[in-house]
Amino acid sequence: MRAVGPEATADLLDVFAALAAIGRDPAGGWTRLAWTDEDRAARAWFLAQADARGLPAERDHNGNLWAWWGDRAAGDALVVGSHLDTVPCGGAYDGALGVASGLAAVSALAGRGVTPRRPVAVAAFADEEGGRFGLATFGSRLLTGALDAGQVLGRVDAAGVGVAEAVRADGLDPGRLGPDPARLEGIGQVLELHVEQGRALAGIPAPLGVATGIWPHGRWRLVAEGRADHAGTTRLADRHDPTLVLARAIEAAREEAARHGGVATIGRVELHPNATNAIPGRVTAWLDARAPRQADLDALVDAWCDEVQAAAGRHGVTLMVQAESASPAVTFDAGLRGHLVQVLGRLGLPAPELPTAAGHDAGALAAAVPAGMLFVRNPTGASHTPAEGADDGDCGLGLAALAEAIEELACT
Amino acid sequence: MRAVGPEATADLLDVFAALAAIGRDPAGGWTRLAWTDEDRAARAWFLAQADARGLPAERDHNGNLWAWWGDRAAGDALVVGSHLDTVPCGGAYDGALGVASGLAAVSALAGRGVTPRRPVAVAAFADEEGGRFGLATFGSRLLTGALDAGQVLGRVDAAGVGVAEAVRADGLDPGRLGPDPARLEGIGQVLELHVEQGRALAGIPAPLGVATGIWPHGRWRLVAEGRADHAGTTRLADRHDPTLVLARAIEAAREEAARHGGVATIGRVELHPNATNAIPGRVTAWLDARAPRQADLDALVDAWCDEVQAAAGRHGVTLMVQAESASPAVTFDAGLRGHLVQVLGRLGLPAPELPTAAGHDAGALAAAVPAGMLFVRNPTGASHTPAEGADDGDCGLGLAALAEAIEELACT
Repeated sequence: MRAVGPEATADLLDVFAALAAIGRDPAGGWTRLAWTDEDRAARAWFLAQADARGLPAERDHNGNLWAWWGDRAAGDALVVGSHLDTVPCGGAYDGALGVASGLAAVSALAGRGVTPRRPVAVAAFADEEGGRFGLATFGSRLLTGALDAGQVLGRVDAAGVGVAEAVRADGLDPGRLGPDPARLEGIGQVLELHVEQGRALAGIPAPLGVATGIWPHGRWRLVAEGRADHAGTTRLADRHDPTLVLARAIEAAREEAARHGGVATIGRVELHPNATNAIPGRVTAWLDARAPRQADLDALVDAWCDEVQAAAGRHGVTLMVQAESASPAVTFDAGLRGHLVQVLGRLGLPAPELPTAAGHDAGALAAAVPAGMLFVRNPTGASHTPAEGADDGDCGLGLAALAEAIEELACT
Repeated sequence: MRAVGPEATADLLDVFAALAAIGRDPAGGWTRLAWTDEDRAARAWFLAQADARGLPAERDHNGNLWAWWGDRAAGDALVVGSHLDTVPCGGAYDGALGVASGLAAVSALAGRGVTPRRPVAVAAFADEEGGRFGLATFGSRLLTGALDAGQVLGRVDAAGVGVAEAVRADGLDPGRLGPDPARLEGIGQVLELHVEQGRALAGIPAPLGVATGIWPHGRWRLVAEGRADHAGTTRLADRHDPTLVLARAIEAAREEAARHGGVATIGRVELHPNATNAIPGRVTAWLDARAPRQADLDALVDAWCDEVQAAAGRHGVTLMVQAESASPAVTFDAGLRGHLVQVLGRLGLPAPELPTAAGHDAGALAAAVPAGMLFVRNPTGASHTPAEGADDGDCGLGLAALAEAIEELACT
């Protein structure tokens, strides 16, 4: 019943190991931020792999990579894949497993003499994490038009490099970033394999799972402006210290997340001037918040804003809170979900269906085309850290399920 | 009665303006961190000024600058001066006003035909702020031996550059950093003019003040290690989030400072990996704490540690707190204080005496030689920020008092 044999799993593990050699960070884990040397090395890996497997590959004007099996011009393509970039010091699996699995699945099918009746593309979407410019699912949202190119170009990274400069240096024309309706028109379905980012499958236990949807989520930037001052000579009563607003923002994020059944995190903070003997004049912090329903998320963020505003008032600090991104709830395509459940059943596996609080390219694309996701068990449940992982056996099962799905959905 | 005329004030303002052109930071204020291009430019300014005024100048093996008036070999020198480095985005005055005033005062006296009966040195001490390596009063404490050269060499800056590499690139031999007993032997008294770092003089009001001493103070480094994780997919109950320990550390610093009559600040924070969608695995933060008496300071820091430790326990986070520097209380020399009070009286000015919570080179040197300080009124009371300042008239009065003191203490 399995569409692939052990040699396909060996191929996957080989090619994944080659990818995992790219972007090792001396500070721990893997860092492959968009449009950097590491990102370019991962792209070179992808293009070399596609070439070796006889899959003509291209890069679109938003930086997404596509390796084609079958006649692309026929339209109604089945797209499988994920992304190659990571957060700073992230894990090796994340989206990378999905891209590697897509390449190995197509090769396994082709090796068995199967041929596609519709084109199949293995895709690697650009800058899914937003680890550099704070714009998650960059490539997939530009493709659909959900991300405004004008807004994108105003972003700068921590070193002050703008998006235009970064993509130009990486060989793209910043003037061409934006919707790609012709490409989108040619896509019939999207299927993303991704390592699980929690412990749900490990708890069941089940090696694979099918995604029901994605929680609504977003990012908010908080800027608290106080008054920079000497840490030794400024009386407590005279201070306008924005770090006390930061402290309340961190605690209120946790409290309001618990109250509204969601999660909320302040994972990025910048103090200015960030010197031991200076009261900071300015604190910038980013809130990441997610909840099962939009109403829960709105209530969580509203209550958090109120708490932080009250703290700013107490400390004589000016506050600005701005939404940087908002991702509405995603429900994956019912037909694809049902299909994936059947595939897992035929492989003799349990077929749990579960939601996720993480954004994904498939979630971004679901606004435009039928999309689905397959999760591979992650024993630690850790994500965006080197502690993330998956057993080789589970990776092989993920590959088998993906190949089976491709064969049924797109092959003769 | 005044030792200097209006042309001396004009000289001071001219030379101070030339210094204030060095190290303007595009992010605001002035940044002249130790051993950087900006620091070198300030040094070049000093050496050029000394040369133009006929004061032979030298740099000692710890990076301190000395411009001599009179026969240095005679010993029992009167040292006047301060430092040229700043915190990141600091103010123009801070120590710079003291160095410029020292040069202008000596020129004013020499211009009147006064000659020194003991040598007078205008000094600019190296890296007073510790803005780069976290070691405040670097040059003056190495000179006295209060700072251990071995300990110094283990420090690295935010870019990972070590002290040895930084000072070698700036023309010093890192192997020679350390005590300079022969030089210390030749110093009879130290007198530092500095802009005030609070609003005490503005409140009296008085243009100048005499320092009684320096509060005991220190710096402590806190490292909270949790578990890096995905901000979206990690349940609140599964988190080991060190930012919640940071939040408690910020709030407890303020609470315990108020309780113990001191001040405490967390002005520098580093999150790792510092990404919006990642729960940080590690937070490093620095506490700056000061109090009127050592017992108050100890109680403040002990109580703060207990609070932070309890928070770490609640959140499953490992905590390390380490003292990075400790400066005991300083009482300035009674004879010099009395002399400065008399000088202010003869200038027709009030002569308030006041303590400070800020460390100074004169405080570091007070452990080895009689030392005193003169403060110039700062209308905003702001310090370590571009909002810091002093009126030209008050700068002129500071110069007059300094010249008067030099004339009486060291001239025929």
